[in-house]
Amino acid sequence: MPVETIAWEGSHVRMIDQTLLPGAKVEIEIRTVPEMVEAIQSLRIRGAPALGIAGALGLVAALTPHRDDPPNTFRERFDEYAGALEVARPTAVNLKWAIDRMRQVADQHREMATQALWERLEQEALEILDEDREMCRKIGESAQQVILENAGILTHCNAGGLATSGYGTALACAYVAHEQGKNVRVFADETRPLLQGSRLTTWELMESGVDVTLICDDMTAATMAKGDVDMVIVGADRIAANGDTANKIGTYGVAILAKEHGIPFYVAAPRTTFDFDTPTGAGIPIEERASEEVTHGFGPTTAPAGVKVYSPAFDVTPARYVAGFFTDAGFLEPPYETSLNALRS
Amino acid sequence: MPVETIAWEGSHVRMIDQTLLPGAKVEIEIRTVPEMVEAIQSLRIRGAPALGIAGALGLVAALTPHRDDPPNTFRERFDEYAGALEVARPTAVNLKWAIDRMRQVADQHREMATQALWERLEQEALEILDEDREMCRKIGESAQQVILENAGILTHCNAGGLATSGYGTALACAYVAHEQGKNVRVFADETRPLLQGSRLTTWELMESGVDVTLICDDMTAATMAKGDVDMVIVGADRIAANGDTANKIGTYGVAILAKEHGIPFYVAAPRTTFDFDTPTGAGIPIEERASEEVTHGFGPTTAPAGVKVYSPAFDVTPARYVAGFFTDAGFLEPPYETSLNALRS
Repeated sequence: MPVETIAWEGSHVRMIDQTLLPGAKVEIEIRTVPEMVEAIQSLRIRGAPALGIAGALGLVAALTPHRDDPPNTFRERFDEYAGALEVARPTAVNLKWAIDRMRQVADQHREMATQALWERLEQEALEILDEDREMCRKIGESAQQVILENAGILTHCNAGGLATSGYGTALACAYVAHEQGKNVRVFADETRPLLQGSRLTTWELMESGVDVTLICDDMTAATMAKGDVDMVIVGADRIAANGDTANKIGTYGVAILAKEHGIPFYVAAPRTTFDFDTPTGAGIPIEERASEEVTHGFGPTTAPAGVKVYSPAFDVTPARYVAGFFTDAGFLEPPYETSLNALRS
Repeated sequence: MPVETIAWEGSHVRMIDQTLLPGAKVEIEIRTVPEMVEAIQSLRIRGAPALGIAGALGLVAALTPHRDDPPNTFRERFDEYAGALEVARPTAVNLKWAIDRMRQVADQHREMATQALWERLEQEALEILDEDREMCRKIGESAQQVILENAGILTHCNAGGLATSGYGTALACAYVAHEQGKNVRVFADETRPLLQGSRLTTWELMESGVDVTLICDDMTAATMAKGDVDMVIVGADRIAANGDTANKIGTYGVAILAKEHGIPFYVAAPRTTFDFDTPTGAGIPIEERASEEVTHGFGPTTAPAGVKVYSPAFDVTPARYVAGFFTDAGFLEPPYETSLNALRS
């Protein structure tokens, strides 16, 4: 089982304070809107799916003391809390989406007694959590036909139980294989400049008892040459209609190294990551990050003052390098012109 | 001109304190054996060729106050100082080699007057310095037939003016091109775990006015895809008889990425790096480094306690990826079965 990034405790939320990882696993309890807003803004919880879950569960937790209020008062509290939560991080689309979904439930049941409405809202929030868990599990299950016993799986960045209800996307494939007793071995690229692989991927796999070995990004080719890697599985930030995949910087290089060693390279992603309005990877804009992340990301300065830095946040892996997509709609193989149509429905 | 890693000032040695790089360029003066031994042991100067030069020049500096001593006393000082310097770093073969060479000069001129002998020793030490500079320049010159105006040159690790008299091997190619007005642009991989590219390569190129851009190791493929890189030039730790090249971890991956982008991959090295007693790269042992370099290399801990780490110090790039060798015996192209014979003489 992956770690529980966020859980519902009947009246409040329990979640891992991710700002303390990987040094310590501290779980915090959230009972009020200010507590949840602070947790979101301080990145104690992050990742689009996890933020949606946090918003919905946080709303229910804050409403718990109001279960005996008159309907009007309860609705006033609801509107106040929902409004504060949905703007906690303005760019987090899942946060707004989840709060909107909760508001629809409240609107549809305006006449319901307060206690019953609270229970209906609790049910909706738990459905958001369960749907995410189910989607991640389906992604992980779609990979099992190609993951053999003792498989060595290399991954880049963190894709990422901690960004979801717990299973993640790329890591869901390893978690489900582990649950099936397949004894998989994961190799985690540290993923410069922000070291998500080193800080998060290793941590959550170790917590779950999945065998994991940390390597620097420039050790990937040597690890493959040694014969330890049977497949690569990475997540995705955005996938174009032809299968070109934008993901964390470094992914494209890993795909080339895999090809050269005859190792299949897979992408794990929910159907929502596929963008059929973007025909190819050439249409995906690549954000550049501040040079400070490279020159003094970890406290001490590791480069000369004023050095010129090129630091793209993402790269695009052409579809021809991708052996298949693990999705919540199943395992999709080339030719992608036809297979990706399964996701358009 | 590259920075002067180490220089002779007529009576003492001047050199860059490399422990303060890249934060500050501080030059220190060395006049005694204890000062030079401390500088060598504290890594204020490092790199095999530079250590040989430091030993020889340090010996002459320490003997400077003894130029008027009687021959016997001078020889006693010589033996005392030479003995202390040659063991300053036991594994540094160039240090012992340089001191042995100085001792031969002293032995051959036992009857010489003290002042004249001191001058002869000074001349020998300066020859060691000049020979290194000449060798590096020849390596750099051998590359000029393939380095065009405005060339983008990607390099990995630091190969490394700071490890030599100043020009280095891979970087000598860039320095000579710069001196010829070719306006080259260098891309420096930061080179995890020890960040030699970030700390040293960028610093020495910036000091010399050569255009340089720092990237993380996992940004190499994206930088190549962008079209900015015309060639790769790296150094070597050991080259087998068939051209298989052991160099800093990550080099092999860069070679694969270069091949995939149709970018030629070159190795720059003096003839002493070619090991004709080792038929292929399979015979080159690969040292593994301590996991702490990966998990707390920047000071703060960046991975969970107890995480398993695989950290090879070097990898081997098969000769088929190498478009040519830049050496002090000229530019050597495939087939290496015949071209490398030029180095056996």
